[in-house]
Amino acid sequence: MFTITELSTERINSILTEALAFANGKTAKIEGEVFCSNLFFEDSTRTKTSFDMAERKLGLQVVPFDASHSSVNKGESLYDTVKTIESLGVNLVVIRDKKDRYFEELNNINIPVINGGDGTGNHPSQCMLDLMTIYQEFGKFEGLKIGIVGDVKHSRVANSNAEALRRLGAKVYFSGPEHWFDEGALINGTYLSVDQLIAEVDVLMLLRIQHERHDAQMSFSASEYHRKYGLTKEREKGMKQGAIIMHPAPINRGVEIDTDLVECERSRVFKQMQNGVFARMAILKEALEKEGYTFKEL
Amino acid sequence: MFTITELSTERINSILTEALAFANGKTAKIEGEVFCSNLFFEDSTRTKTSFDMAERKLGLQVVPFDASHSSVNKGESLYDTVKTIESLGVNLVVIRDKKDRYFEELNNINIPVINGGDGTGNHPSQCMLDLMTIYQEFGKFEGLKIGIVGDVKHSRVANSNAEALRRLGAKVYFSGPEHWFDEGALINGTYLSVDQLIAEVDVLMLLRIQHERHDAQMSFSASEYHRKYGLTKEREKGMKQGAIIMHPAPINRGVEIDTDLVECERSRVFKQMQNGVFARMAILKEALEKEGYTFKEL
Amino acid sequence: MFTITELSTERINSILTEALAFANGKTAKIEGEVFCSNLFFEDSTRTKTSFDMAERKLGLQVVPFDASHSSVNKGESLYDTVKTIESLGVNLVVIRDKKDRYFEELNNINIPVINGGDGTGNHPSQCMLDLMTIYQEFGKFEGLKIGIVGDVKHSRVANSNAEALRRLGAKVYFSGPEHWFDEGALINGTYLSVDQLIAEVDVLMLLRIQHERHDAQMSFSASEYHRKYGLTKEREKGMKQGAIIMHPAPINRGVEIDTDLVECERSRVFKQMQNGVFARMAILKEALEKEGYTFKEL
Repeated sequence: MFTITELSTERINSILTEALAFANGKTAKIEGEVFCSNLFFEDSTRTKTSFDMAERKLGLQVVPFDASHSSVNKGESLYDTVKTIESLGVNLVVIRDKKDRYFEELNNINIPVINGGDGTGNHPSQCMLDLMTIYQEFGKFEGLKIGIVGDVKHSRVANSNAEALRRLGAKVYFSGPEHWFDEGALINGTYLSVDQLIAEVDVLMLLRIQHERHDAQMSFSASEYHRKYGLTKEREKGMKQGAIIMHPAPINRGVEIDTDLVECERSRVFKQMQNGVFARMAILKEALEKEGYTFKEL
Repeated sequence: MFTITELSTERINSILTEALAFANGKTAKIEGEVFCSNLFFEDSTRTKTSFDMAERKLGLQVVPFDASHSSVNKGESLYDTVKTIESLGVNLVVIRDKKDRYFEELNNINIPVINGGDGTGNHPSQCMLDLMTIYQEFGKFEGLKIGIVGDVKHSRVANSNAEALRRLGAKVYFSGPEHWFDEGALINGTYLSVDQLIAEVDVLMLLRIQHERHDAQMSFSASEYHRKYGLTKEREKGMKQGAIIMHPAPINRGVEIDTDLVECERSRVFKQMQNGVFARMAILKEALEKEGYTFKEL
Repeated sequence: MFTITELSTERINSILTEALAFANGKTAKIEGEVFCSNLFFEDSTRTKTSFDMAERKLGLQVVPFDASHSSVNKGESLYDTVKTIESLGVNLVVIRDKKDRYFEELNNINIPVINGGDGTGNHPSQCMLDLMTIYQEFGKFEGLKIGIVGDVKHSRVANSNAEALRRLGAKVYFSGPEHWFDEGALINGTYLSVDQLIAEVDVLMLLRIQHERHDAQMSFSASEYHRKYGLTKEREKGMKQGAIIMHPAPINRGVEIDTDLVECERSRVFKQMQNGVFARMAILKEALEKEGYTFKEL
């Protein structure tokens, strides 16, 4: 699985159903000896460990791969590295890479490749866990109002989420520094001021300020961002009853969100991480079943 | 478990008994699927691998965590990292961090945290393995004379050991460069010259010269330290019959100890490492049993 | 196992037979709980992951070891590091190190040490997988003509291979930049021009241009090397019917070999990688059986 765009609504629903079953205690163990490896060419705690946990819970053997000590340092291409891993007998790989749509180079690979994030493009497993978290809360997408605040243009998460949510019947609003928004960023939703948006939505998705992705210096300080666009304690009071707060993490405390709100009652931040393992179990299981592997419930 | 100070003598004895049983061939495998992770924010071969072995011997699944490629590089706090690992379904963590008493930030964490070493403060699992090694040799602590030579003030190991040994009835002596000792360093023992100390003790604990912890240049060369305070072949001859040599390692050969003595008959250096796995098995088992996990002997 | 030179022809044949059996579907699982660790002090994707897979397929528990975060950074010697790993209860280690014949320092180690590559010297597991790949193709070594092209002098692989192949009855030819060849490099074979060699051989073994090993600047560019000594599409047409192409990888595409030939019909490059896992299973099994461990077929 590379992108959310490629998934039919039916397939999204099927993965969601399985992920929710795992969250409710369903187990599945793969039959036979199956090896996987997580090829992460970018730093990650959450996503890599989350896939690792999901793989182990499914009974896969996780073969370690450390990008920083690999032959990529000797100039080996991504294709040759993945072909090598395949040749060594690994049966599935998860890849994160800095390059947008890196997976287009991998046509000759004959094992399932799961996208753990590509450049500023796609992050389908994060999208699935976000959808799952929303569905757990509201039992539907139709008619929900979703607000996404931050640098939508450079966020792997925002665009996938906005597109999927719109397709599933939700209404999407955006906010954040205006110069971060252009026509491309607004395909799947409408721009509102932060205060308008916060008062309106059922789900408030805050994006991480990606210091490491902004080439130029940001034109504002962290505290200025917080005051202008962040979820302050004051703004949180204006949220609708039952509305929830989401963030893909890692959080810049005191920037996107006041530090005291990270674990407040509305916050689903750590719930999202829990759900991530279940969403990835569903994604991995689907990919492996397509290859003919079978699972049994314990 | 964070510090030796927090442990009652009774609890120390109970962990020691279990550790000695493991050394004598007892086995224990946890029931069910239990995940742990070793979050080491400082270099370590011995301690990390030792915990890893102990965890595997207990039947835990060890989820890899590489601090240098984690989101800590994006500025994430220790609390948020540990909360993330907990949210992902990891059931126990071992942490080593450069910061003294880092564990005070982790109040809201609901899984057991085992201290694998904090700053210059505590290293309780090392203390337990040292106690275990002494007990194996002498069958008691009461009345033993223990000498600790080196930079007691900056050693995670020395202070925990001195305190525990004093509480268990041993008499502790210190030696090393005098300007490394002040009143704080001498709470649990008495300063002697190196030659006096070596002639007196049943157990000679040499500390590593922590080049990497001394901010200022040391005021002596390695060979000068060896000549003045190190265990030379000459000094070893003056040790009492049956007296043993210990060192937490990694050893600076030819500095704290003559290279030919590292594996001499009195030396328990590699025995300590063996014992480390059993001590950590006992520590982990105690922490997990407190959470309700059960073990079976094979 | 440290070098090919130490192996009798009989022992080479015995390991080959076992490796070929694994390639044909034989399985073997070790009895009891056995731990191993891969101590790689040089970057590697292929060899490290290949050993890791082989170990897991044999039912060993692989204890992670990260050289870059180990106490080697605190100046610990290789011997002390390996003795530590042994003391912790690891039952076998695989080592790769930059130092030629590092294993000569390890006399006091009491667990099997498998050489995963030492300096520019030996790489016996690579040699075994190369022999295996040739044997699969031709069913014999006697009378085969083998061409090795590249920096034979600085290649871990070339010398071991040339020696073993000569002993097994093959005839070895070398080619590449003439100033890379001196008498020492030509003990086991004869120098030919690239075009002569390619027209003559049954097996064409291309060596990697080891940019990272050449101290001085190379006296030619990558494209110049390709034109003068590389396997171009034109040269490939001159190969004998049934002749095969081998490369230990990672490949510099467009230097040693035209990128379009990497997966051509004659190429066994990825087959070699597959075979590597089976060859290493055979090597590990032999070493463990010598220690008294037993295996069962599933």
